[in-house]
Formats: sequence, structure tokens, C-alpha cells
Amino acid sequence: MQWNRKDLLTLYDLSGEEIEYLLDTAAEFKKVSERSVKKVPALRGKTVVNFFVEPSTRTRVSFELAEQRLSADIVNMQAQASSLLKGETLLDTVRNIEALQVDLVVMRHAAPGAQSFIAKHLKCGVINAGDGAHAHPTQALLDLFTIREKKGGFKGLKVAIIGDILHSRVARSNIWGLLKLGAEVTVAGPATLVPREFESIGVRVCHDLREATSDADVVNLLRIQHERQNASFFPSTGEYSRFFGIKADSFKYLKKDVLIMHPGPINRDVELAGDVADGPNSVILEQVTNGLAVRMAVLYSVSGCVQK
Amino acid sequence: MQWNRKDLLTLYDLSGEEIEYLLDTAAEFKKVSERSVKKVPALRGKTVVNFFVEPSTRTRVSFELAEQRLSADIVNMQAQASSLLKGETLLDTVRNIEALQVDLVVMRHAAPGAQSFIAKHLKCGVINAGDGAHAHPTQALLDLFTIREKKGGFKGLKVAIIGDILHSRVARSNIWGLLKLGAEVTVAGPATLVPREFESIGVRVCHDLREATSDADVVNLLRIQHERQNASFFPSTGEYSRFFGIKADSFKYLKKDVLIMHPGPINRDVELAGDVADGPNSVILEQVTNGLAVRMAVLYSVSGCVQK
Amino acid sequence: MQWNRKDLLTLYDLSGEEIEYLLDTAAEFKKVSERSVKKVPALRGKTVVNFFVEPSTRTRVSFELAEQRLSADIVNMQAQASSLLKGETLLDTVRNIEALQVDLVVMRHAAPGAQSFIAKHLKCGVINAGDGAHAHPTQALLDLFTIREKKGGFKGLKVAIIGDILHSRVARSNIWGLLKLGAEVTVAGPATLVPREFESIGVRVCHDLREATSDADVVNLLRIQHERQNASFFPSTGEYSRFFGIKADSFKYLKKDVLIMHPGPINRDVELAGDVADGPNSVILEQVTNGLAVRMAVLYSVSGCVQK
Repeated sequence: MQWNRKDLLTLYDLSGEEIEYLLDTAAEFKKVSERSVKKVPALRGKTVVNFFVEPSTRTRVSFELAEQRLSADIVNMQAQASSLLKGETLLDTVRNIEALQVDLVVMRHAAPGAQSFIAKHLKCGVINAGDGAHAHPTQALLDLFTIREKKGGFKGLKVAIIGDILHSRVARSNIWGLLKLGAEVTVAGPATLVPREFESIGVRVCHDLREATSDADVVNLLRIQHERQNASFFPSTGEYSRFFGIKADSFKYLKKDVLIMHPGPINRDVELAGDVADGPNSVILEQVTNGLAVRMAVLYSVSGCVQK
Repeated sequence: MQWNRKDLLTLYDLSGEEIEYLLDTAAEFKKVSERSVKKVPALRGKTVVNFFVEPSTRTRVSFELAEQRLSADIVNMQAQASSLLKGETLLDTVRNIEALQVDLVVMRHAAPGAQSFIAKHLKCGVINAGDGAHAHPTQALLDLFTIREKKGGFKGLKVAIIGDILHSRVARSNIWGLLKLGAEVTVAGPATLVPREFESIGVRVCHDLREATSDADVVNLLRIQHERQNASFFPSTGEYSRFFGIKADSFKYLKKDVLIMHPGPINRDVELAGDVADGPNSVILEQVTNGLAVRMAVLYSVSGCVQK
Repeated sequence: MQWNRKDLLTLYDLSGEEIEYLLDTAAEFKKVSERSVKKVPALRGKTVVNFFVEPSTRTRVSFELAEQRLSADIVNMQAQASSLLKGETLLDTVRNIEALQVDLVVMRHAAPGAQSFIAKHLKCGVINAGDGAHAHPTQALLDLFTIREKKGGFKGLKVAIIGDILHSRVARSNIWGLLKLGAEVTVAGPATLVPREFESIGVRVCHDLREATSDADVVNLLRIQHERQNASFFPSTGEYSRFFGIKADSFKYLKKDVLIMHPGPINRDVELAGDVADGPNSVILEQVTNGLAVRMAVLYSVSGCVQK
């Protein structure tokens, strides 16, 4: 297979083969960060702009380290400091970035589809680092990478995603990727956050934690994102935790070798008990490590398709 | 010619020959950003501090990329985070920066003359990235570079600058540069923003857009800067646009090959109609590209005169 | 001697021999910043995260330059932008940083002991860049370096530290270092800020400036930190200045070759008259220069003990 996209916008766009290609490439790059000198000259003399119109620490830092380990030149732009405040259109802002002969723009934006809109108008590559509740493809890729590394593959694998599915770009991106690779996906959470409509995209919808997870090979727990919720979708975090939080007790019915995943940051003892987060089934910190490898793979693959 | 200034403070200080020297140097550096590996080792092991005491995105990013493509080490300091808040004097802050054996300080400051004051006291080089309404020499240099590239030279060239001349460091720096290089300059805009006093520095002052631009080879449209105006200098942006905005209609009287320039960010359909901004006479994005080359030239030339 | 610590947490932990080792190493690194190419490849391919959970300009910039001159890859994280706001625990945040295969974390935090707590749980190295009123070891090391460079050594040397000793991590770290190296330390200031209890750690406590400084070889003036004081510990800065500020007049009783030191930023004419700060006895800017060398030495020494 030959990678031939200058942008990474959503996993929805990709074939299973393309996703596997990125995971294979990430496996190569993972070795770089295990060396004493954690650096390759793959993007030397290339410029990457990290353009975050929504605040982010962990995704921004992971991308920035990935870019450094590829030897790229990096500029960080944040929304509040940017010309957006001066009334410039988003397209003008990004065209200005491109006019600086930038090779890649890594962008986070609150508006779903912002990156896809931008990518159509630019010759430089665009990587979606999260657009509203729509997509977060590199997060899904790191989840897929971690699952593949631990479970060997996806055919017939049972994955449960628990929490606020409605507002989660992580959930959407994971679902698209998992289904393309042959996994079976169950989503669960309070009915207000996990509407029946999700069945139409091919996942099982469920409102009981035990039912959703007792036969699961992987349980991916989403963060309860207080900051994204204007209305009250459940009575309290205590109540949420009682019905949908994974605790030591849950292992009475969970598979012995179930993987416990979480995109972070964790609300300890809300969606996930602290001892489970730190326990032997948890791969949460490995996900972070793999995120770096996956982002190196995406930056590298995409940059090869940017016209000079 | 030999460049022998450790600082770039205003174009007012420079001879026409010095300005042409920087433009020639920029032409060389422009090629670097067109290569696949956009990097030269010219400032390797040199340290540049970008000290922005007034917010800026586009100028800061352009300088930062220029520094990276010269392989400099870079530190960004912003005012709100700086010791200025703790009551330290500006001179003490900058002396502290110099004590870190920094080679160049790129500085933006709201106070006209701040950089000139600082430059007198420091051995390291100082580049003015904008001081209040006074000067913005690298912006003017990129405008000059773009004009020269498109029109071949300045002798007898007619340049109209439209907008808020009174508060514009871009206008002042352009006027100084253009006059030194032999161009004829007309400034136009509402009488409140384009006072007659400008005639004393050798430009034509005019309050009618058509009169100012119908024989112009270049029309440079300034941004209406809401954020800099405390009082009301014109009734409304709608009114401003009607009398001083360039639109498709304006091409009834404009020269066919007129260059349309703008320092950005554009207020579309205020000082400039969107279709003109995106049309064949517009060189607005090329200005951005040239800004990088010009800043590389300035950083390089100035750094050669910093004592070791 | 062989350095064998992966962390630098407080000078209290170190032997006199270890402190001298760091000062010797700093002397070597000081030469790097005096070269034309101010860069060595010592930390090439290593990653340093500057994690500042309390605002800082001068310490952050000094560390960042030190890291660049060692050719490290650098990521900056600031508290307000970080996941701490999303309710994540400090330990989880730092474990996430470590999962990115980071080699060193340089950390400032308002809570005394935060870095020591973190260091116990991480395999990567931790450098304390200031923890509340507790310790600021690299500031003390640069003070010690400057004293040693100017005075040749510490045995029997008389050092007076003046100001708000109670709230000062700089004072604590200096005291620990100076005593270990054989100097005699006097602390002085208003009784509210210099309690008798300090005698128990081996220093002379004094409430009269002349008495404290007339036989001193070194006078280190602390900054009156308005931003750290909730209650009023002295009537006014004018009053403070009258009783505890060093002025030209003070040289009537000060030793001719006394070193005047200050960690910066200076409140001119509060703790220190402007003409003394700029005068021949002042080594304040040399302290800044030495800070860079000391931080390079610490980063380098510590990184050698991080397990791969």
C-alpha cells in the first residue's frame, strides 16, 4: 500500500487498509522514542504549525514532541493570541499561515468540520487534532494501536465504550476505526448521553454497565467532561459513578484479561476507580506512549504527500 | 556596500542604499523557503529572544519561522508573563535578557522609541517589531520588497496609502522607505485620520479615494484598527467602506496593473472587498511570504554586527 | 567524585562535595556561552519538559536557554493551560508527561515538596525550579557560583542575607548551601520577616542592617515580594527602604570589596538604591549569566543518572 493523502481529517474517510498502514508505520516510530537519542531527521527543514483554537495540553504536547523527534521546525499558535480576535476569517488566517511556506498545520477547533473545510483550500497538509464533538483521529489511532499491540488484531474483538458518547469525538473516531477493522462495538452510558440513534452506525447501544462489559475484551472509559456540558445529563457524578464507573468490584464479571483504557485526563473515582486505573489491566499510560508513535507516523505519512 | 548596524530601529535611519542592501539580501533568503529543506545554518548557536510587550500573532510567527530557518536558538517572552508586572524597569528586564548572552532581541512595544532607547544601552542587537504608532520597519521592508519584485524599481512609482495614516506605524515606515527610494507617495482617508501635517514629510495628502488612486501603480490599504481607536474618527465602518473601501467597481478608474496590498489581517468588505482581496491584482499573500525572507535578511545582517 | 542523583530537589540534601562538583561543572559550561557558537550536543535527542505551575519568566527563560545550549528537545507546559484545571491529580499529570518518554522535568510549583513527591514516583529526572517558600536550588547554586568566582571560596566568608527571610525559598536554599561550604551566615530584616527561629539552623539573626552587614564579604538583598504577602509585615515600602535598603550611604560602613547581590527582579530604591545596583560592587547581572551555566551543569549532571 502507498499512503496518498496530504491530510488526516477523520478515520471515517480511511479504509481499513489505510488505518493498518498508519499503525504499522507507528510501530516503526515507536522504536525511536525507546532509543537513547530519540530523534530522526525525517522532517528536517519542514515546518509544522500547531494551531490550537481550543485549549489543549496533552494533545498539543504529544504532537510537539512527535514533531521534535522528527526534527521538524515548529511554531505554536493559540487562538486567544491570534488574529481571529481581530475579526479575520479562519480561512484568511490559515492562508496566511500557508503563505509562510508551512508544510503541515496541526489544528484543533471547536467547530466540527473546520479542518476539512480548511484542507480543501490549502496545499499544505492538515491534521485534525480534534474538531468539536466530531472527530479526533489521532486519539482513535493510538487506541487502536494499543489494542492491536495487546490483543493481536481486531476481527471479532468486543470493545465497550462507556460514558458520554453523545459529545465525544473520541468515541466517534474509535467507532469508525473499530468497525472498519472488524471489531464489534458496544456503547453504554446514561440514556441522555447514549441515544438509540447510534445503532444506525452499526454499534450496540446499551444502558447497563455489566451487560455492556461482561463479555468485552476492551473497555474504553470516556472522561466525564464537565466543561463541555451546559445542561445536566445526569443527576450527579456520584450517581454516574455508581451506575457507570468501573471499580475493583466490576472484575467479578469482567474478563480476566480485559484491557482498561481511558483517553485521559482521568477523574479518579468517577468513571474509573483509582486502584483499577493503576492496576494490571490498565493500559492508560501505554496509550500516552503510543500516542507519540502514532502522531509521528501521521506527521511523516502525510508530509510525504504535500506538494512542493 | 557593507552593512554595519547592530540594530534595525526605523527605516528613517537608513539610507536608500542600506534599504536596497536588505532587499537584495532578502532576495537570496527567499530561495531558502522554496527549497525542500527550508533551513540554513547561518545563525546556528546564536540566541534570539522574541520579546513582545504587545500581543502579536502574525509578526511573531513570521520572525520565529525566520529564526528557525536560520537555525537560531529561540526564546519567546510575552509581556503579561514577564517581570514587567513585578515592577521592574524595562531597561532592567532587557539587561537581564542580555546577561543570558543573547545575540538578538526582537521587540514589540506600545511605547514609541522603546527599542531605540534599549538599543543604546545594550551590546546585543535590537530589531524593532513595532513600537506604538511610530515604526514597523520589517513590515515596510516586505512591502518594498514586494513592490520591487513586481514593478522592478521605485523611481517615479506612484504609491497610494489609504486609511488611518495618523495611527499607523506601517504607513510611517512605508513613507520613509518609499521616499528614500524615489517613489511618489499619496496618503488618503478621512480628514480626521489623514491630517494635512503629513505634507511636511513630502507626501501628497488627499481626502478622495479616486483622486488618490486613479494614477497609482500601487494601492496599499491599511487595516481599520478598531482596537487602537479610543475616539470615533469616522461615523461607521459602513460609511468608511463607502468612501474609502476598494471594491470591484474601483477598477473602472484604477490602473489595470495596479498592485493591491494590505498588511493584514484584512477586514473583508470594510477597507477592501473580498473579491478584490482574492483577485488577480492582489499580492497580499505574497507580502506574507516575502515578510519571512525580509526578516531572515534583517536577522542575518544585524547579527553580523553584534560584538562578540 | 561521581554525581549519582537523578533529581535536584534541595541543597539541603546535598553534601558540600556534591555542591562543589556542580559548581566545577558549571565553570566548564560557562565557557560554552562565551563562544561564538553557544551550543554543545550534550543532550541531543533528550527531551526536557519545563512544567511551571507558578508563573515565572526569568527562571523559565534561563532554563530554556540552558536546555537549548545543550541541544535538548524542549516542551513548555504552563499550569493555567494544563489538565490540572480539569481535575487531574498532579501525580497523574506528571505520569502522563513521563509516558511521553521524557528524560527530565523542570518544575516550579506553589506547594513545598511537590517536586520531591513527584521525583519518588518517576523514573525520569526532576529538577526543582522553586517550590513555594521552601527551596530554589538552582538560584542558590548560581549565588554560590558567583561568590566563589569573586571571593575564591567559602571558608570563614561572611554572608548577610537581608529581607523577607520567612517567605523566601532563595534564602533557605542559600543558607543550606553556604553553611555546608563553611561560610558564616547572618540574616536580617524586620522581626516579622526574620524570626528568631532561624538561629536553630545555624545562622545569626539580626534586626539592624548596619550590624548585619558592616563586616560582611557578601550582602544578598532579597526582593520585597508584594505578590506573596497577604498580611502586612511592615508598615510601608518607604519605611522598609529607610531601615533595610542598601544605599550609597551604606558604603560608609560596608567593606570596600563587598559583593552586592540580588536574585532579581530589583525594586529599585526599595531594597537597593539604583546607583548601588549599577555600581562597581554589584554582581547582579553576572548572577544572571552564571545562572545559565549552573543550570546547564545541573541538567547535564542529572540527565546522566536517568535510567534508560
